[in-house]
Amino acid sequence: MRQVAILGIGQTIIDEQWDKSLREIAGEAAFAALADAGLQKTDGLFVGNMLSSIVDGQNQLGAFIADWVGLWHQEAVKIEAACASGGAAFRAGLMAVASGELESALVVGVEKMTDKAGHDVTAALATAADADYEVEQGISFVGINALVMRRYMHEFGWKHIDFAPFSINAHANATHNPYARLHDKVNAEQFERSSMVATPINLLDSSPIGDGAAAIVIVPAEKVVSVPGRARVVVSGSGSATDTIAVHGRKDPLFLSAAYLSSKRAYEMAGVGPGDIDVFELHDAFSIMAALSLEACGFAERGQGPRLGLDNEIMVTGRVPVCTRGGLKARGHPVGATGVYQIVEVVQQLRGECGETQVGAAKVGMAQNIGGSGATIVTHILRAE
Amino acid sequence: MRQVAILGIGQTIIDEQWDKSLREIAGEAAFAALADAGLQKTDGLFVGNMLSSIVDGQNQLGAFIADWVGLWHQEAVKIEAACASGGAAFRAGLMAVASGELESALVVGVEKMTDKAGHDVTAALATAADADYEVEQGISFVGINALVMRRYMHEFGWKHIDFAPFSINAHANATHNPYARLHDKVNAEQFERSSMVATPINLLDSSPIGDGAAAIVIVPAEKVVSVPGRARVVVSGSGSATDTIAVHGRKDPLFLSAAYLSSKRAYEMAGVGPGDIDVFELHDAFSIMAALSLEACGFAERGQGPRLGLDNEIMVTGRVPVCTRGGLKARGHPVGATGVYQIVEVVQQLRGECGETQVGAAKVGMAQNIGGSGATIVTHILRAE
Repeated sequence: MRQVAILGIGQTIIDEQWDKSLREIAGEAAFAALADAGLQKTDGLFVGNMLSSIVDGQNQLGAFIADWVGLWHQEAVKIEAACASGGAAFRAGLMAVASGELESALVVGVEKMTDKAGHDVTAALATAADADYEVEQGISFVGINALVMRRYMHEFGWKHIDFAPFSINAHANATHNPYARLHDKVNAEQFERSSMVATPINLLDSSPIGDGAAAIVIVPAEKVVSVPGRARVVVSGSGSATDTIAVHGRKDPLFLSAAYLSSKRAYEMAGVGPGDIDVFELHDAFSIMAALSLEACGFAERGQGPRLGLDNEIMVTGRVPVCTRGGLKARGHPVGATGVYQIVEVVQQLRGECGETQVGAAKVGMAQNIGGSGATIVTHILRAE
Repeated sequence: MRQVAILGIGQTIIDEQWDKSLREIAGEAAFAALADAGLQKTDGLFVGNMLSSIVDGQNQLGAFIADWVGLWHQEAVKIEAACASGGAAFRAGLMAVASGELESALVVGVEKMTDKAGHDVTAALATAADADYEVEQGISFVGINALVMRRYMHEFGWKHIDFAPFSINAHANATHNPYARLHDKVNAEQFERSSMVATPINLLDSSPIGDGAAAIVIVPAEKVVSVPGRARVVVSGSGSATDTIAVHGRKDPLFLSAAYLSSKRAYEMAGVGPGDIDVFELHDAFSIMAALSLEACGFAERGQGPRLGLDNEIMVTGRVPVCTRGGLKARGHPVGATGVYQIVEVVQQLRGECGETQVGAAKVGMAQNIGGSGATIVTHILRAE
């Protein structure tokens, strides 16, 4: 397959956007990406979305958004893999262009989820878990993650406060991101005293939902030239893998085998290893997932993820900068859009557009998008040239 | 891209399968396809489904079904394009193997929709239309099709009875298909006197929903040899296109431009034209759609689709045999699965496995899957070698 580059990116603020419709939010990001790419249209559209059929009464988002952004007649589909929908949609667009089937693709991740009451959204999010064997028992999605976190703390001897750096770092970085959902810094004391959600997960372990969209234009790398002040960003690695949908089905519920496998595939394709990654936009839906992701991708030993936070290694100046634009925790988590936001943010880093949270001379960045409690995981590696 | 062949097919009966769960139905078709292919597993899974998040409370069907059928760790995603989800999922699997990214792919189309009350399913199906501009006005999905049919009859001078052959042919063929939802023949009098659904569409213009799954194993063509009694079936053409999601947005609401474009792309890729197609599994969700599909794909002049039925050209012995296994009308329409059923049935024809409804020496077959009222249309052409 031929190499592919990212020609344009776009994103909307993540917020309660009650004054805008689903199509308007998607369009805002799509038009921004097309403008950034200097294109009017693309050959195809790949949409990442999880909840529009439940929350917005709208399916067929491929044709729906193609219609709105003027891509009538082009190929358009929606890809859904719970919270990994955005990453999976990017991979679908990537494959379409890399294979030569299309000459350009627009990838849009969009979610509009704050028009419904909180309990309705909680029920909708639970569709990411196993309806027969998990949800039927009455457990919520955060409840599943809480069981994992509790077991992890027990097994490896961590206290809840040890996870504080993930939240503190994300919130601090988000204050410099105009698109972020939250713009307030937090400290360890606030982290420890915030409201309990599902013990031991409290509010500051958890990412906020929101309405938002992000978009990317993909073209063959040969069509993009690197210019001073704007490096060419190529997709050097891509991998996707699954695990059992119910956490109880896993041999080891504290190891994200799909993160291990998808990052392994991406590393091999890119010819790099964890030591080569300058910035890592990981999927910190809950702080425990940040730790597990760092471990499965080779940045920390088993059970030692929180150590990277405590040692300041996850900060912009650290060894493995994560959540440099705020992460899911503070940039926000519009579920099906998140994976596209992550890749957009890696592009911003590789182009050197991140100001206060710019990672020095970032040349290689990774984005990892997680669906469910680790059931679908998609990893991409980008390189500035 | 390399050429791809279909190594295995599987399907379940379409019915009210209240004694089986979503995963069991999907598994039944998947295991049948794997057994038919002589494989234990594939490199990836592509699921076509429209309604499981609404009707079954289950999202992330890629990982969900991969888990159930033993494809742990493989790549797996769901593709949704309303009633074209199955065809779109097949195209995604096709692209993954044709591009060289995967060596094999399992495509599963599945829908379990009869556990809910009829009005709930009607509301769920309406998510295929435009929530803001169509559904918000109170129109149902069949209502939209009824407006199209009424306009068509007015414009081209057809009477309702002129559409009877589509229904009669589909029902007659389904009596020979053990997987079909309906096994009763109908005649013109019954057609004309059946219950009204949304004038002029009555019950015998309409396809029945149902629970069912179909599955296909895709591999590189070079790995398959043609043996006596079982031809090698290659995918020679594939095309996908969209149109405005709301029918009122179209320049000509009586022409399926996405059917025209997607079939054009498939014809060009396969190097064939309408005259070369020996069997055509079209998307007769309503009889009007059969007529519009035949016209847009070049089998009939504008406004002359019903003529093919009246002249017996759509029968197994005719010039353009359609719905040879019963079509959506009588085989049944488990929405997200339908596109995969259609391709499975074309394979059965090209292998010569259709008994009473076998089309002579069928060598080239086409399947066309329609999402919404023509907003997403995916066309595939298969060839026996």
